[in-house]
Amino acid sequence: MTSSDHKRFIRQCYALAEEAVQNGDHPFGALLVKDGEVVLTAVNTIISDNDETRHAEINLVSEAGRRFKPQSLAHCTLYTSTEPCAMCTGAIYATGISTIVFGCSAKALYDLVGSDYSIPCRDILALGRRETAVIGPILQEEGLQNHRDYWI
Amino acid sequence: MTSSDHKRFIRQCYALAEEAVQNGDHPFGALLVKDGEVVLTAVNTIISDNDETRHAEINLVSEAGRRFKPQSLAHCTLYTSTEPCAMCTGAIYATGISTIVFGCSAKALYDLVGSDYSIPCRDILALGRRETAVIGPILQEEGLQNHRDYWI
Repeated sequence: MTSSDHKRFIRQCYALAEEAVQNGDHPFGALLVKDGEVVLTAVNTIISDNDETRHAEINLVSEAGRRFKPQSLAHCTLYTSTEPCAMCTGAIYATGISTIVFGCSAKALYDLVGSDYSIPCRDILALGRRETAVIGPILQEEGLQNHRDYWI
Repeated sequence: MTSSDHKRFIRQCYALAEEAVQNGDHPFGALLVKDGEVVLTAVNTIISDNDETRHAEINLVSEAGRRFKPQSLAHCTLYTSTEPCAMCTGAIYATGISTIVFGCSAKALYDLVGSDYSIPCRDILALGRRETAVIGPILQEEGLQNHRDYWI
């Protein structure tokens, strides 16, 4: 995948994050790419589902686990509008998805909104026994605008 | 909480793990203690819900987030039959629950069943900005018997 592919898919995640807000949820979106094509998308549903665990990435992982076998997921790339939290990083790691690409970094988001919640996903994945590649931030300023519009 | 309290609640988690198996799910159970009393219980529902993310601890966190405010969760202890995975550790950390007590260690389980999935929860929590206390393993041999009966 080229840098231009990454930008295209991250912009699609930002559009999904806007869709989440239109649904009454928080501004986060994620998608799964297999063989260069988007095969699944997901948005944050914390408010819709009244469930603090329903981040976009974990919603994506839930559906990916239903649709694809582990050997297929190992060849997929997960794109997400904002660097995954510790929970979502663990969920992604468990699926065997081999590459994560994110838009805004967790640090940039939490510098904006203030929180003690952030753990960089690379630090968690470094503890794993399998390698998971991480690429990002990408088009961070564009993504942070969604967060500014929503949280501030 | 005394060592005898920990053993009592961990045995209750092992009973929940057996209940999960009776429901057709995997042998994992968890519960939340507030002011010395069990206020919530949860079991693994991966098979019932057809969702790989529905571990006992994350099910507990989903419900805990609906029932209790963050300042209340900070005074709760989460007990679980087996050391939480990276996903569940992240979910617990996000709630602000301040203490985790587990029965079997992740290492003991994965030595039994074979997997490259395990990351010790203490290593993940050490990356956090807030402290989360972790106690365990407790009554590990009793808990491993559930796993032997199920997986082997």
